[in-house]
This record gives sequence, structure tokens and C-alpha cells, in this order.
Amino acid sequence: MDTKASSAGSNDWQIEPVDHSLEPQLRSRIDGKAKPLGSLGRLEDLAVQLGLIWHPLAPRTERAVVFVFAADHGLTAEGVSLYPANVTRAMVATYLAGRAAVNALAKASGVDVQVIDAGVDADIPAHPGLIDAKIRRGSRNAAHQAALTPQEVSDCLARGASIVAASIDAGTDVVAIGEMGIGNTTSAALLMHRLAPAPLADCVGAGAGLDTAGVARKLAVAERAASRSKANSPLEVLAEFGGYEIAMMAGAVLGSAARRRPVIIDGFIATAAALVAVRLQPAARDYCVFSHRSAERGHTLLLEALDAKPYLDLGLRLGEGTGAVIAVPLLRAAAGILIEMADLSEVLAGTLQPQPADCGHG
Amino acid sequence: MDTKASSAGSNDWQIEPVDHSLEPQLRSRIDGKAKPLGSLGRLEDLAVQLGLIWHPLAPRTERAVVFVFAADHGLTAEGVSLYPANVTRAMVATYLAGRAAVNALAKASGVDVQVIDAGVDADIPAHPGLIDAKIRRGSRNAAHQAALTPQEVSDCLARGASIVAASIDAGTDVVAIGEMGIGNTTSAALLMHRLAPAPLADCVGAGAGLDTAGVARKLAVAERAASRSKANSPLEVLAEFGGYEIAMMAGAVLGSAARRRPVIIDGFIATAAALVAVRLQPAARDYCVFSHRSAERGHTLLLEALDAKPYLDLGLRLGEGTGAVIAVPLLRAAAGILIEMADLSEVLAGTLQPQPADCGHG
Repeated sequence: MDTKASSAGSNDWQIEPVDHSLEPQLRSRIDGKAKPLGSLGRLEDLAVQLGLIWHPLAPRTERAVVFVFAADHGLTAEGVSLYPANVTRAMVATYLAGRAAVNALAKASGVDVQVIDAGVDADIPAHPGLIDAKIRRGSRNAAHQAALTPQEVSDCLARGASIVAASIDAGTDVVAIGEMGIGNTTSAALLMHRLAPAPLADCVGAGAGLDTAGVARKLAVAERAASRSKANSPLEVLAEFGGYEIAMMAGAVLGSAARRRPVIIDGFIATAAALVAVRLQPAARDYCVFSHRSAERGHTLLLEALDAKPYLDLGLRLGEGTGAVIAVPLLRAAAGILIEMADLSEVLAGTLQPQPADCGHG
Repeated sequence: MDTKASSAGSNDWQIEPVDHSLEPQLRSRIDGKAKPLGSLGRLEDLAVQLGLIWHPLAPRTERAVVFVFAADHGLTAEGVSLYPANVTRAMVATYLAGRAAVNALAKASGVDVQVIDAGVDADIPAHPGLIDAKIRRGSRNAAHQAALTPQEVSDCLARGASIVAASIDAGTDVVAIGEMGIGNTTSAALLMHRLAPAPLADCVGAGAGLDTAGVARKLAVAERAASRSKANSPLEVLAEFGGYEIAMMAGAVLGSAARRRPVIIDGFIATAAALVAVRLQPAARDYCVFSHRSAERGHTLLLEALDAKPYLDLGLRLGEGTGAVIAVPLLRAAAGILIEMADLSEVLAGTLQPQPADCGHG
């Protein structure tokens, strides 16, 4: 896919909010189903969100794709991560080999995997599962200078949005986003710090597994980066602190919302990208499904800044979209409430016909 | 399936505990995968459980069946439920029509539905999705007499076990259990009271949606039933308080464990059945996967009695196996960690081969 031709900015992706006035009608439809009132708990909330997004059509959830955005971060030169930066490219190779956690979990959940090179510091051979949307081989070191140029930010948003929009136009029903980028919890923490906003110490955590001393060092680096700039608008903050994969994920959220499709947000870093998107266009919030609560320290506060209650809490802290893909079956279940279930009135009237033998009974 | 011929008791289902000494070896295998240590959180615990169950084979999770056991309860004459007893038969018709919540959620999760008439107070026409294992048209009123005879308890255990074992022998990889039976939260509360054990007031909740006065009335009925008998052994307690579907679910747990297959436990009532099974044969615990925390009041304490930490907490309180089926994709994801993921050493050696184009990339 040639996405490099696009130079549209975030304003080119107009997002129509869902019509919240339809919610009572959807709740009442769900209340009329063959079950005690409210007995499907949070799946009912998810069904309402899907109903609002798809109105007046029935929600579709069959074809789901997880987009894994990958990029490197100049900030890794400061020692903010447990792993060396070249693990980013090694993990991209693992995704393309179908052997990473996201591949395993996506296969289990009936989700396709699409990898996007947003700015990996390596030349990656062409592959059908890879979209080359590389902006640059790694961002600049945010401890010393702005990680991205304003034009790069604009390009990332446009590419992320157009990649996802093209996939939706080709039949994708559900978009999930995840990422890979050694060092990117530091970028995400800085974005959260300025846009949530929240004290930096509440935003910086262990990432892939730093010990206490490692977290302290990471916080010191983040403080140095933060001290360079007072930026607090989404585009400026993205430019200052990066990175390419995060900015492209923000674009992906905008692109999915502009196409009126749900976008499942993975963990800490993907949620920081969603925060950027929502600060750019608040209506994008209506289309975000927050999949899980990460074990990464700042995630709970970050979710609160978005008024988001995730559906899963399994202690994941891997990224790659792993939490987002395991939430896909929950979206399908929630859509099933609206689409498949009989009304209680039909049940009590005794008018339901037995299903033929070949329709899914074991 | 002719299950009525079987008259085996719970001792006929010998359960071999898993070999817990293999756990460090499995943990170490998972630690060697291409991900930060522990970063798949509770999915790693589930992978360990599946690995222990299937050892020395790789876990299989593709073919999953939810068994929905249905029966009526004589105790409903005392007004313990929000719904009239004939809703049990109406819901069985809804399952066979493929239009209930469990059908919708099972379809979304790639799970087949099998309904078992354990003791519904109605004649239910034959259907390929229905197994007729009816013991009696409804149990006796436990407020006044033992709900089941000892022979009925034995028959229920044997039928539940043999139904599930036959399904496993025919290729089912994963068993999930759920139920339908107006009034059965009262039976489950009484079982919990005696076998957890726990004060009855901590076991009785709102069920399908009783108000405060309704719960108080239900507790008074449960206290009357409890006052009839001091039974505290699993078989006696099952006979005193019923019901057929709960006893058969206990048998299903034993049957799945005897065949060394995981059995996914749904909510409050299914967990009470699992408690009975575990009190009968403690080794059965190794095979139980507790899917979700129900909003029903006693469930948290009941789970604690089984040292169980459920994977989902979505406020469901519907039964039917709905919580169990939405956990099936999590089992598949957990198995995928063991089966699909590369080792970190392979990733760092750079020896992984790109996957061909037709292998799941979107």
C-alpha cells in the first residue's frame, strides 16, 4: 500500500460523534432480551457502544485486524529500557514469522495481524504482512531535542488514519491497535504527563521489567526531556516526545473513528496514543474500546483521564496488541446480544422454532 | 445418547491429579518465550494449568462444547425466585432455537452448545442439540423433604460424567458447564453453606434480581430447608438440597477430570457444583478453570473456598454457561503461548523465517 503519498493532517479526518440520545432505546432493546435485567453486566455496555457506533445498522464484528505499529526511539540512548533498541527489529521479524505473542493470541481470537513499520531503525524486507510507512530510521533523542518534526507528526497521523481507513474500506469490521518500540513507555509517559495531565512520577513505570533503580533512572531521563519544553497541545507534545508508532496509532484511532468503526485500544502505550487522538478530536472517544488494564504503573490513571473502564484485567504488560486481540471475542459476544438473542416476549409466547441440526449444536 | 443405562457412582470416575512437580519446568518454558518475563500475566498461569493437564502432549483447545444442564426445583413453590418455574422449560426451548444468551456468546466464541434435560418439569421434544438425561420432572421441595433420593444423586453424577466423557471421547477438547433452573441459586446457596462452609446469609443473594424483601424471604426459605438436616457430606448435601442439574454438573466436572480435560466453570451455581465435585474428589480441582466472578452475592466467598481466582469480572449473573463460553478464547490464547510462540533465543539468533503470505496476515 502506498501511504507515503498522503500528506493529510488530523483535521482531514472528520469524526462524527455517535448519537448518544439513542442510548435509552438501545438499553431498552437489550432489557427486552431473554435474560434477567442487566444480567450480562458490562457486555451490555459494550453492546450499547457497538449499537451506537453502527446505528442504524446491526454491528458487524467478524473481520478483525490488529495493526501493530513499530518504531525506534532515540531516547533509548539514555538507557531507559531493559532491552537494547535492536530488539524492535527482531520482534518485527518475529511478527512476520507468525511466532510472537500477538500472533498466537490473534490466531486464538480469530484476528488477522498487520505490521506497520512506522520508523524502525533497520531496513525490513518486504512482506505481505508488512506495511512500509517508515518515516525515518528511529526518532531523535527526546532528552536533547524534539523527537519528531511537526511535518513528521502530521505525516504519521495521516498514514495511520489512511492505513486503517483503507483496511475498513476493504472489509475490516473491527480495528485493534498495538505497538512495538523499545523505549516507548518513556514517550507514552511524557505524553500522558502533558495531556492527561498527571505528575511525571505517576506516569513512569517499569516498562518491560526495570527494577527500582532502573525506574528512577528512566524518570530522571523523562524529567530531562520534559524540562526542554512546556508543550501541552497534542501536536506539539507528539513532536517533542514522539514516537512514530505512537503518532501513527493516534492517526489509526482517528481513521477508524472517521469511518465509524470501533477501535480496540491495547495497553499503556496504545492508550497514550488514544489520549492524543481524543485530545485532537474529542468525538474519537466514542469509538474507542479500552480492552484491558495493563500492569504498567501509569495505566490506571491514564484510563481515568479518558473516563475508560477496561474489560479485562489479567496483568498483561506486553504490548504488541496482545490485550486488544483477546478483547475481540468480547466484542463479538456483545454484538451477539443485539443480533442473535430472542426477546423475552418471544420466549414467553412459545413461538420460537427449534434450530435445525446443522446450526451449531455439538 | 443413552445415558440412562449407566448406574455408576462418583467412585467409578477415578481422577489422577496433575503432576505439580512439572510446574517449574513449564514456567521456565514460558519464561523463555519471546516476551518480557511474566508479561502475559494471568494468561501464563492458565497456560501452566493447561500444560499440566495435557502433559506430555501439547494442549488442544479447538473443539469446545458448553453443556447446559437444566432442571426444575420443588423449592420454587416457596417463592424463592423472581420468575415462575415454567421459565425453565421456555429457556430450554430458547437454547434449542439457538436464540438465548448462551447461544449468542457461544457462537461468538466458537463453542458448540449441548443442552441436557436433567430434570425439567415438562416433556421436551427430541432435538439433536438435546440430551435426555431426565431423572424426574423437577426435584422435591427441599423446604419439606430431601430434594433428591440417594439413588438419584448417584444417577446424576454418573450421567453427568458419562455425557462429558463420551463427548471427549468423540473429540471435544474443552468442556464448559452451565445451567438453567428457576430456583437453583437457593440450592446452590445451601450446598455452599454446608460444603464451603459459610454462614447461610453469606450464600443467599438476589439470583435473577430479587429486591431486598425478596432476598429476605429466600433466606428464610433456605433456613427452613437447612433446619431439616445437619448433612455436611457432599452426597448427603446434594440429596437434601438438590438439584438434578447441579448434581449432574458435579458429575460433569468429575467426568472431564477423569478424562484429563479442562472443565470451565461458569458462575455461582456451576461453582457450587464444582465445590461438590472437589469435595468428593479433591484431584478434580486441578482440571477446573474458573471463568468469571459473578455479580451474585455469594460467588466471591465460594470461589475463595475453592482457592479460585477467576479470569473475567464483567458483572455477569445470568448462568447458562455464558461466563464459561466467553472464557474459551482465553484458554485458546493461553495454549497459544505454549504452542505458537518462538523462544527469545530464536528471536535474538535471527533464525526465524518469514511466514508465507497465506498464513493469517490480513
